[in-house]
Amino acid sequence: MRAISFTTDYGLSDAFVAICHGVALSAAPGVRIIDVTHLVPLADVRRGAAVLADAVPYLPTDAVHVAVVDPGVGTARRAIVVETPRGHLVGPDNGLLLPAAEALGGVVAAVELTEVAPARTFHGRDLFMPAAARLVNGASAASLGPAVRPDTLVALPGAVTRTGPGWLEAEVRAVDGFGSLQLAATAAELDPLGPSVRVLLPDARRHDLARGETFGDVPPGELVVLLDSTGRVAIAVNQGSAAERLAVGAGAVLRLERRRAPEA
Amino acid sequence: MRAISFTTDYGLSDAFVAICHGVALSAAPGVRIIDVTHLVPLADVRRGAAVLADAVPYLPTDAVHVAVVDPGVGTARRAIVVETPRGHLVGPDNGLLLPAAEALGGVVAAVELTEVAPARTFHGRDLFMPAAARLVNGASAASLGPAVRPDTLVALPGAVTRTGPGWLEAEVRAVDGFGSLQLAATAAELDPLGPSVRVLLPDARRHDLARGETFGDVPPGELVVLLDSTGRVAIAVNQGSAAERLAVGAGAVLRLERRRAPEA
Amino acid sequence: MRAISFTTDYGLSDAFVAICHGVALSAAPGVRIIDVTHLVPLADVRRGAAVLADAVPYLPTDAVHVAVVDPGVGTARRAIVVETPRGHLVGPDNGLLLPAAEALGGVVAAVELTEVAPARTFHGRDLFMPAAARLVNGASAASLGPAVRPDTLVALPGAVTRTGPGWLEAEVRAVDGFGSLQLAATAAELDPLGPSVRVLLPDARRHDLARGETFGDVPPGELVVLLDSTGRVAIAVNQGSAAERLAVGAGAVLRLERRRAPEA
Repeated sequence: MRAISFTTDYGLSDAFVAICHGVALSAAPGVRIIDVTHLVPLADVRRGAAVLADAVPYLPTDAVHVAVVDPGVGTARRAIVVETPRGHLVGPDNGLLLPAAEALGGVVAAVELTEVAPARTFHGRDLFMPAAARLVNGASAASLGPAVRPDTLVALPGAVTRTGPGWLEAEVRAVDGFGSLQLAATAAELDPLGPSVRVLLPDARRHDLARGETFGDVPPGELVVLLDSTGRVAIAVNQGSAAERLAVGAGAVLRLERRRAPEA
Repeated sequence: MRAISFTTDYGLSDAFVAICHGVALSAAPGVRIIDVTHLVPLADVRRGAAVLADAVPYLPTDAVHVAVVDPGVGTARRAIVVETPRGHLVGPDNGLLLPAAEALGGVVAAVELTEVAPARTFHGRDLFMPAAARLVNGASAASLGPAVRPDTLVALPGAVTRTGPGWLEAEVRAVDGFGSLQLAATAAELDPLGPSVRVLLPDARRHDLARGETFGDVPPGELVVLLDSTGRVAIAVNQGSAAERLAVGAGAVLRLERRRAPEA
Repeated sequence: MRAISFTTDYGLSDAFVAICHGVALSAAPGVRIIDVTHLVPLADVRRGAAVLADAVPYLPTDAVHVAVVDPGVGTARRAIVVETPRGHLVGPDNGLLLPAAEALGGVVAAVELTEVAPARTFHGRDLFMPAAARLVNGASAASLGPAVRPDTLVALPGAVTRTGPGWLEAEVRAVDGFGSLQLAATAAELDPLGPSVRVLLPDARRHDLARGETFGDVPPGELVVLLDSTGRVAIAVNQGSAAERLAVGAGAVLRLERRRAPEA
């Protein structure tokens, strides 16, 4: 029996999540449901896409991943199923699913869910979760709707990353619950900057910080730049929040420069 | 194996929910537990009743629904099991369970749980969840305690709805996590008002808004009146919070009037 | 198949919890995972230890309890597995696991997880959850690493409790989600104070309150001292927050004194 993962901006205060669980369990009684998060900020497709892409490599192979962050519900945006080498993704065609599809090996095929849901404001219950249950029960993606050309799927703009000798500029891809800033850059772009880095914020403030391997490499309360558990460059504060300290959030572009070792 | 659903005001920061899961799993090892929500505002029986009633139609048939929003714990209020055509409800006799019982086909029978729990402040752990596990294991409701006459069960006051030619007055039944206002009225009461509606707030402020089928029928930030996913009248803001915009909450009574189409 | 319980300060907004679930399910496909809470305040080892110890007596016997509240991740602190008569505990050696081990019958043996995790900042995913899955699959603790002498395990300082004729002084062990103050003292220390108690706060403010058996023994909004569902002394407000009312939190030391019955 395949598993279903579930990622939304529904929040945890209402019955929405349980209703979708109920729909899945009624249609596929033995299915395992793994909640990724339901606290994606309302309508924040980019954040939903990031958290889903972070999760899927570690979820059971061949799972069906349902994600609903859908400011366009009820408009002309398509509802889709994306097939990858390591599972399916089900949700709106607004860019939410594609980073996760890449993380699962890329888009093999896609179909549009054309069945009109009766209650147009709750596609998780009426459209996406029933489609996921049918996949779990053995239906093929092709049986759920007409094929969609993968190159017509809506993609989010890519996160900005630029590099030059001794510097990199990278967009803050996400802020996690600890307040750590995750940049779009990776080790290959950070390593040339060496053990001591200056970060320039959009408003020209600057901070000097050490390259570490973990939060614990600096004293509590101090800034550190490191590779996070997804392999991306992150700026963190040991036992604190870098987002609060630097007053920047997702979408900001930071510039990191190589420094000489501090003199004192 | 039947499922247990679980709805409380316990919050998610303490061990209360997990302890109840553990009690159920220890007594009925294969049971599936579906958390509806544990973020019902503390002691808000009306809100708990609404979210539970919203959920149960979509949960597996024949589940046992445990709900604990119980400002009277330790007082003389009864602990009950309610039997319906499509499952059981277990919790305090304070009105919390009855809207869900209606949604499951009505009260067939009820019994009182008269066993005194040893630790009087945690009935979820000591009384309600053990009773649910016994039902899951095949016990009848009648075996759990003496019968209670259904017409003696405590009911919440019904939500206010009044209608007249070209207007309706309805209480805000609930505010969901998106800030949408769910009214007690349904399509039969809204449809006569036509495509453009004026809403009068308790303090005499007024707003004109369009009837839509979904949030996306109005631009982001605009108010819309529609039928929500439960079939009730709702006032929403596309990608925003109607509760914040209108500064009203659950229990407020709104008046909606038919308007001529806007002139401009 | 044994169960895994999971307690962290990861929060519910990111993919961290789901990633750990995925790792466990991929390695031990049938395992039941019980989330205790993921809202332990960041790096608050004492609070994590309290909530875990509260939960484990009610979780399935022989479960593997994974807990990660770990301000020292990446430093020299050890990663350990603790064996008790009623299950295993897996997490950092920083005091987090020991109160739960006591609640499960005491430490029988302990081993150190010496395998170096590849991504040093996410031990839940790379170290603790894989070890738990191996235990669930039948591995012995001894097979996971070299033995550690139990008396070398890091313990948190014990909560303060002092008593004398007609008084007790006790530390606030925890504040629960309702705002109730749980003291380190138990019935044996409270009972001699009788039915009416004066509480002295650290700043010398004082409140008189009744001994009750449950919140409902006092009117809504009033303070009461009682034994909570874990058997500890608690100061609560019926339908309110004692922590807000008294403006004290975990770690504060309160003095309770016997009073004569109020005169009026």
